Amino acid sequence: MSLPRIAVDAMGGDDGVRTVVSGAALARREHDRFNFLLVGDRARIERALEAHPNMRHASEILHCEDVVGMDEKPTQALRRAKTTSMGLAIHAVKEGKAGAAVSAGNTGALMAMSKLALRTMPGIDRPALAALMPTLGDNDVIMLDLGANTECDARNLVQFAIMGAAYSRIITGKEAPRVRLLNIGTEDTKGTEGVQAAAAQLRAATGLAMSFEGFVEADKINRGQTDVVVTDGFSGNIALKAIEGSARFVTDLLRSAFTSSLRSKIGFLVSRPATELLRHHLDPNNHNGAVFLGLNGVVVKSHGSATAKGVANAVNVAARLLEESLTERIAADLAELGEARLRVTGNGQSK
Amino acid sequence: MSLPRIAVDAMGGDDGVRTVVSGAALARREHDRFNFLLVGDRARIERALEAHPNMRHASEILHCEDVVGMDEKPTQALRRAKTTSMGLAIHAVKEGKAGAAVSAGNTGALMAMSKLALRTMPGIDRPALAALMPTLGDNDVIMLDLGANTECDARNLVQFAIMGAAYSRIITGKEAPRVRLLNIGTEDTKGTEGVQAAAAQLRAATGLAMSFEGFVEADKINRGQTDVVVTDGFSGNIALKAIEGSARFVTDLLRSAFTSSLRSKIGFLVSRPATELLRHHLDPNNHNGAVFLGLNGVVVKSHGSATAKGVANAVNVAARLLEESLTERIAADLAELGEARLRVTGNGQSK
Repeated sequence: MSLPRIAVDAMGGDDGVRTVVSGAALARREHDRFNFLLVGDRARIERALEAHPNMRHASEILHCEDVVGMDEKPTQALRRAKTTSMGLAIHAVKEGKAGAAVSAGNTGALMAMSKLALRTMPGIDRPALAALMPTLGDNDVIMLDLGANTECDARNLVQFAIMGAAYSRIITGKEAPRVRLLNIGTEDTKGTEGVQAAAAQLRAATGLAMSFEGFVEADKINRGQTDVVVTDGFSGNIALKAIEGSARFVTDLLRSAFTSSLRSKIGFLVSRPATELLRHHLDPNNHNGAVFLGLNGVVVKSHGSATAKGVANAVNVAARLLEESLTERIAADLAELGEARLRVTGNGQSK
Repeated sequence: MSLPRIAVDAMGGDDGVRTVVSGAALARREHDRFNFLLVGDRARIERALEAHPNMRHASEILHCEDVVGMDEKPTQALRRAKTTSMGLAIHAVKEGKAGAAVSAGNTGALMAMSKLALRTMPGIDRPALAALMPTLGDNDVIMLDLGANTECDARNLVQFAIMGAAYSRIITGKEAPRVRLLNIGTEDTKGTEGVQAAAAQLRAATGLAMSFEGFVEADKINRGQTDVVVTDGFSGNIALKAIEGSARFVTDLLRSAFTSSLRSKIGFLVSRPATELLRHHLDPNNHNGAVFLGLNGVVVKSHGSATAKGVANAVNVAARLLEESLTERIAADLAELGEARLRVTGNGQSK
């Protein structure tokens, strides 16, 4: 079976074309059935491909010179959807010339362009940005929304839960991933009206391909006891960045502690394998690749400062989601929910 | 000059009366001009005081047997405001028999009882819960609200900024602490309407005893570049717990990395002073004592699992705020804002 291509915005990211192309080539070693559409400056892409002959054979180049700036306003970028590398990569998905787009460019512009070009799936009011985060358990946890929607109602949160669960089934292989809503306490009475109403709907619904387990507080996100954490984009973005900032804070403290005395320095050298393990576990490149869920097509955001390894992980995410037909799975789950809702209403249990 | 007493709910907390009384005695060593009102079971308090003769001389016991349960609903607890140790400690502040109350009990109940008994200060619509958090800089950062108000409007956020700045002036000694609103980006267009409107009001206001510096993202809270981080209670609670959980996650990873091989174990032993320093810096007991700001009286929440050292820090916070007349300072700042607002309106710059 032939798989759809992956369109890569070769111009996004802080490190330039070479890092993006090397990353895509690295990903292709794991997913060698995929072909690529590399969008951006032809001469630079060709130079970058010289080091990766296998990748060159599997790639078509779509030349363009215009690039969305990292600080550009989404509304401005939208006007150049047909001329920029980001816009053309998304457009390739819209036209069926690719199944997924990957970009390390401006997040707001990527979101705005993706929504406009690809539209949301039937049954989804708003797409959400989902990412994988490390845990103390066996699997990563998926958190969404991470900033695509500043304010969300109960209906949005329920849809995010369904999309997150579909994604988690692919990642964890579980039939019913454990889903929780992010809240400021675990009692029913805690939180906003929206969070409470979403919990009531998810509890009442039957036939969902998830195990809805109520609320989770932000200090428990990475304990490995939850597969999907659902929240609005404001809280989700704050939680994500607070976690990243705090991890960096601790490692910065550790570094200064380890260099505070000769004895500490020696201890550091002796225990380097341990600290390397920690660094590996916390390296954001190993968890790179946030996905816009709920669109008619897969769009993956790579971090602007990602290394080639980080880009490879983002491309791997796109490849995995195409192989596992994420979009179709979400559509099937939404159809299921439609029926479940009718049943709930029939029992008079819905809110 | 005689200072007001500090009322201590001796029954709150997971570790019982002995820990609370030892903690208060420890705090009194630093603040020996203070007297205490210890509220709870007389026999147990007296036994706990046997080890602290100086504390005994400075303490009056207010006997009661009823205790607010840690899982009790605030509405239920409110009915027993006149019989529980928590309720009586707050009531002592209301009646002027103490200047501050400290409790390690149920946060929701403490908040509800404090609001009902002490009422908010003139010019404050809602009290906020504020706590100190460690940074890479010289001073702790103050963050508020941490969960007292699930939803907040621009007016609430502006008032929180004023109260947080007053608190920070006491902690940092700065005349104009750097205040920022927590947001999901630093551009003007980011975030909710409420956050944007609060930023506009704080930018336009003159004569405030703070330096308002716009927005801060959650990964920058503990970089030491901000003195006060202002947010709604939902986001604040999530940010606080995400930071705590992430710090614990990293230290758990570190522990497992350090015990993964003999070499790592040796490295750990050699570098123990460094890891002890880290542990000291991250120990929540060293930052214990969240304050309800905006009430007619000082109420300090000690963590339920605090050690005697942790309780001492919470009591120290209460003592410091009484010594420095926090409530009066906030009142003065609010009066100033009233004038500033008039000026702003006169210039036509207000929103």
